[in-house]
Amino acid sequence: MQLGMIGLGRMGSSMVRRLLRRGHECVVYARRAAAVASLQKDGAIGAASLQEMVSRMPKPCAIWLMLPAASVDQVLGDLAALLDAGDIVIDGGNSHYRDDIRRGTELRARGIHYLDVGTSGGVAGLERGYCLMIGGENDIFEHLRPIFSALAPGVAAATRTPGRKAGAGSAEEGFLHCGPHGAGHFVKMVHNGIEYGVMAAYAEGLNILRNANVGKRTHEHDAETTPLRDPECYQYEMDLPEITEVWRRGSVIGSWLLDLTAQALQQDPELATYGGRVSDSGEGRWTIQAAIDEAVPVHVLSAALYERFTSRGQADFSNQVLSAMRHEFGGHVEKTGEGLK
Amino acid sequence: MQLGMIGLGRMGSSMVRRLLRRGHECVVYARRAAAVASLQKDGAIGAASLQEMVSRMPKPCAIWLMLPAASVDQVLGDLAALLDAGDIVIDGGNSHYRDDIRRGTELRARGIHYLDVGTSGGVAGLERGYCLMIGGENDIFEHLRPIFSALAPGVAAATRTPGRKAGAGSAEEGFLHCGPHGAGHFVKMVHNGIEYGVMAAYAEGLNILRNANVGKRTHEHDAETTPLRDPECYQYEMDLPEITEVWRRGSVIGSWLLDLTAQALQQDPELATYGGRVSDSGEGRWTIQAAIDEAVPVHVLSAALYERFTSRGQADFSNQVLSAMRHEFGGHVEKTGEGLK
Amino acid sequence: MQLGMIGLGRMGSSMVRRLLRRGHECVVYARRAAAVASLQKDGAIGAASLQEMVSRMPKPCAIWLMLPAASVDQVLGDLAALLDAGDIVIDGGNSHYRDDIRRGTELRARGIHYLDVGTSGGVAGLERGYCLMIGGENDIFEHLRPIFSALAPGVAAATRTPGRKAGAGSAEEGFLHCGPHGAGHFVKMVHNGIEYGVMAAYAEGLNILRNANVGKRTHEHDAETTPLRDPECYQYEMDLPEITEVWRRGSVIGSWLLDLTAQALQQDPELATYGGRVSDSGEGRWTIQAAIDEAVPVHVLSAALYERFTSRGQADFSNQVLSAMRHEFGGHVEKTGEGLK
Amino acid sequence: MQLGMIGLGRMGSSMVRRLLRRGHECVVYARRAAAVASLQKDGAIGAASLQEMVSRMPKPCAIWLMLPAASVDQVLGDLAALLDAGDIVIDGGNSHYRDDIRRGTELRARGIHYLDVGTSGGVAGLERGYCLMIGGENDIFEHLRPIFSALAPGVAAATRTPGRKAGAGSAEEGFLHCGPHGAGHFVKMVHNGIEYGVMAAYAEGLNILRNANVGKRTHEHDAETTPLRDPECYQYEMDLPEITEVWRRGSVIGSWLLDLTAQALQQDPELATYGGRVSDSGEGRWTIQAAIDEAVPVHVLSAALYERFTSRGQADFSNQVLSAMRHEFGGHVEKTGEGLK
Repeated sequence: MQLGMIGLGRMGSSMVRRLLRRGHECVVYARRAAAVASLQKDGAIGAASLQEMVSRMPKPCAIWLMLPAASVDQVLGDLAALLDAGDIVIDGGNSHYRDDIRRGTELRARGIHYLDVGTSGGVAGLERGYCLMIGGENDIFEHLRPIFSALAPGVAAATRTPGRKAGAGSAEEGFLHCGPHGAGHFVKMVHNGIEYGVMAAYAEGLNILRNANVGKRTHEHDAETTPLRDPECYQYEMDLPEITEVWRRGSVIGSWLLDLTAQALQQDPELATYGGRVSDSGEGRWTIQAAIDEAVPVHVLSAALYERFTSRGQADFSNQVLSAMRHEFGGHVEKTGEGLK
Repeated sequence: MQLGMIGLGRMGSSMVRRLLRRGHECVVYARRAAAVASLQKDGAIGAASLQEMVSRMPKPCAIWLMLPAASVDQVLGDLAALLDAGDIVIDGGNSHYRDDIRRGTELRARGIHYLDVGTSGGVAGLERGYCLMIGGENDIFEHLRPIFSALAPGVAAATRTPGRKAGAGSAEEGFLHCGPHGAGHFVKMVHNGIEYGVMAAYAEGLNILRNANVGKRTHEHDAETTPLRDPECYQYEMDLPEITEVWRRGSVIGSWLLDLTAQALQQDPELATYGGRVSDSGEGRWTIQAAIDEAVPVHVLSAALYERFTSRGQADFSNQVLSAMRHEFGGHVEKTGEGLK
Repeated sequence: MQLGMIGLGRMGSSMVRRLLRRGHECVVYARRAAAVASLQKDGAIGAASLQEMVSRMPKPCAIWLMLPAASVDQVLGDLAALLDAGDIVIDGGNSHYRDDIRRGTELRARGIHYLDVGTSGGVAGLERGYCLMIGGENDIFEHLRPIFSALAPGVAAATRTPGRKAGAGSAEEGFLHCGPHGAGHFVKMVHNGIEYGVMAAYAEGLNILRNANVGKRTHEHDAETTPLRDPECYQYEMDLPEITEVWRRGSVIGSWLLDLTAQALQQDPELATYGGRVSDSGEGRWTIQAAIDEAVPVHVLSAALYERFTSRGQADFSNQVLSAMRHEFGGHVEKTGEGLK
Repeated sequence: MQLGMIGLGRMGSSMVRRLLRRGHECVVYARRAAAVASLQKDGAIGAASLQEMVSRMPKPCAIWLMLPAASVDQVLGDLAALLDAGDIVIDGGNSHYRDDIRRGTELRARGIHYLDVGTSGGVAGLERGYCLMIGGENDIFEHLRPIFSALAPGVAAATRTPGRKAGAGSAEEGFLHCGPHGAGHFVKMVHNGIEYGVMAAYAEGLNILRNANVGKRTHEHDAETTPLRDPECYQYEMDLPEITEVWRRGSVIGSWLLDLTAQALQQDPELATYGGRVSDSGEGRWTIQAAIDEAVPVHVLSAALYERFTSRGQADFSNQVLSAMRHEFGGHVEKTGEGLK
């Protein structure tokens, strides 16, 4: 089957390579000519412009966008002007599902089909395959099934869920038609919200283990700082690379994210190359906003998001307010170091 | 090798079976004679009392306790009276690591060795193997290595972590000597703290998906209830069994807990047999208390614990206070149903 | 000065009475004729329709809406059709600030002025006065200053903030022009977000005090429930009405909300008339959504909101997921009562 | 009445001055001779040692300790050696209530009485009076009532709670016998836990207001950063000193902490002299640990505590773990600035 791909960053280029390996034909375009050239070496058909791309594809064509969320609307506008009724556009990036609803409606008015595809898998996806969460018309989903099937990991990637019948739907292959426009990105949004929460759970736990030696550190005694009551209970020097490794086998918290954590700690137990400014790319925020609209309590998912905000200095003013209050009522002057150290 | 096992509940009996299958000899005791008899059929040597158990084992003997945390001290006291210098006691249950420090010191005074072994694996452990986090003297750990090796899942249970050399320690087999007395249960404690957080992340996310149809439900408009601003954006009927299934392949949030969630939803998409009163068995609480002693922020792990408390009605009075305040300042009268429904 | 008031619920009718007492003239309208009649007795001019109201007021007129947020747009539409360039509409309800921005723009196109006024004070406002947070054009704010001044508590309601010059702005009287359209409701929104957080802090703390006798309660010991380690430390029977009373004098946490809490507990220490289903009226939600847009971490404000959601059963499915997971990995069966009781 | 005071820091010296002003006699001691000398000028009787202090007081004597929590046990040990049966020791500092239980028991064995007095009021207490939460034997409490009455703010400090009878207990004066040993510090502990929560609610809310101009700031668009969807809704320049001032009159969130916040912002709207490293002095931590022992959910109080930990860099490793994970699965490289700025 033939697919056009616009956007050849980490994700887009790997997806093209996976499709090529599985016998599909890809026409590719990106602003950076080098990215196009690199994929041409691997067998893709390069295009120097949107126009050239469309002209190289027989109608009806199917074109996949793998772009930063902020660029989709502009590129989609340019592209749609070149398309005809019956053509298909797929947005595989990190769009807000509400944009999908809007785009689906706008494009439908012109006879163009639109699918939103939440794509998970990261840089490992080329080998592992991608988990695809898909929204839009069902017959368009069915039409593109060979593409989704090639991108997805396939049935063998996990053991069969007990009670599940073989061949009962595509979820077992790693792709799923979740519902109408936006449903794909909605599911992917919540997926990422969960991802933030799971990541934070590991990170907080490892921080506790790392500080299990706090009883060895000296600390001053004053009215501002409470002494540690049982320093003899915090004398452990925990080996984080070994601990994350042992958890990978047989424990209840085994996961791919744990595998990756063990891998990072194996390379550097101190993680000293990371400063700890943690980005968030939109879905985590939208997850919370959806939860609030639905009146669903999400203590954990919110906390995980806010920890990322805080890691980037966004709580600073809040903390200054606290220090100011403490100074006003108690005459407390800020300390310059962590009291317990 | 020979091991005594006291406590033959879900965990203890499965561990005995796994050891028997791998050629070890087990002397078993439990208060319930039926539990002992059942394991005798599988090849274990049964004992009708602690005394009989000890008398059947050549010295120095090694005896593993797999008991509710609240019973350990009493059984251990009875058992220790029967042991001699050089004997070994292993606590594989859910003890507080501080109890291990105390017990290790007390037993050492009498020449008895003590290991604390945090054990993860659940009911699947018989087949999958157990992840073992071990604290105590290193030479005692080495002495019991064959037992740990038989209980653990083994190297093949996961792919090798990139950068890790083959044979570099036992973690790769699924067991680890974490440090002196208490270190094993400390690591297991944090493991469970993480487990609570990871579970809550999935649970909250699935609750958002389940309520993605909130825009279809009617709701009244009054000064107490804000209307949903964009009901057209919440018209999705999400298929949770299929969504959890698709996430199992290729996604960033794949995990064993997700596998189990997919399995439960496969059996009953409504989970109607569960009332949602969630227990917590100690480690989650101790994790937070340790974090606070260490001054480590654990927003996510705490929230996960508190959600369990709340599921059991423990926030009721707090909520009554809120309603009372609202009534005092605003004349607000409690509503009898969720406003958005 | 003359003011029209539409909406004569708890808030609207008290505000009219306060204005009448201070010598202003009020033309009032509400759907319920009884509400109009009641205020007529107190000196207001009643109107049986929007049309009658507008016809009774010399131009340019100023009309205040005190309506449920969900009703504002419709009434405003009906009203605006009756107004002329130069007339003023004030929305004093709980509107989303984004609606103010939209309405301000729409009405400006027709020469009609619009102010948004976040109003705090509750049922006590008739006597205590109302705190007014105002958005819109500055000269319209200045024009209505006599109205705001009459509604607000006045300078004497609190001691002068040290360092603040007398007469330096209206904030000291209890009303403030916060900025352009929406600024008033934005500030009120955050005010309510803070209110939720402050209320939750008291409620949680009182719940801890109430359970300070947990060591007296018996509890069973099993693998599902951790025993309380130090029951002798939880033997207190705390007298909540007296404790909240003592905090009212000299403590750091004195506040009006504390006064009200003491009052409610004075009436009924058990708060038995409250079921603990806590409503939320919009601003708490919008506060979190604004914080997320701004990337501002709001752990406390979010938690307070989610506790309200949970009080209304909105976490039930999430808890069922947790129970299902626990059953899958550990064979845990739900307990029917709180283990610690 | 005569009282000895040991510890003449901010709190102790002001309390002595308040007692002297109200006609009580104070014998004072502190390690710093200058602190003693300063109070001698105000009419106190100075002592150069514990021994001298005790020798200057007729038996039975009552001595109040106002010391950092970490110093109490040592000073109390030295002091108790000088006391006789019938003497009274009061600990007015920030002790853990469990220490009170222990000390009360130890001292009782020697006939010495012990009261624990949680003291709130801060540097303003000299003028405003102190809120006193008292634990220990009731007759000893009654014996010292004149001292407590002099330190407390008195009935006039707040309006009478509706429904409360005049003269119905001391709470209305600002002091309360809360229960047996430890009850005073238990109530003070929870008081401080609430204080942290209330403070955090204001701080988070003010941070949202401060960032209400985020739509004016430029930001780059890439796959790591989600664009702000509605920058036109975040164009406000909020005047925090005026907003906190207006909230002081008539609003639901009026409080002494708000008064102090308005005062601090009045002095410096940017709070630029504060770095935002927020201390915590023990009670906040113990509050959470008590809540967990009681299985009481305290999302808000915990979050407030953790925000303080985080303000002191204690989440850094946790954040490094997150960045490492993101790099492993997504090839994400940390950004050096906040994406939204």
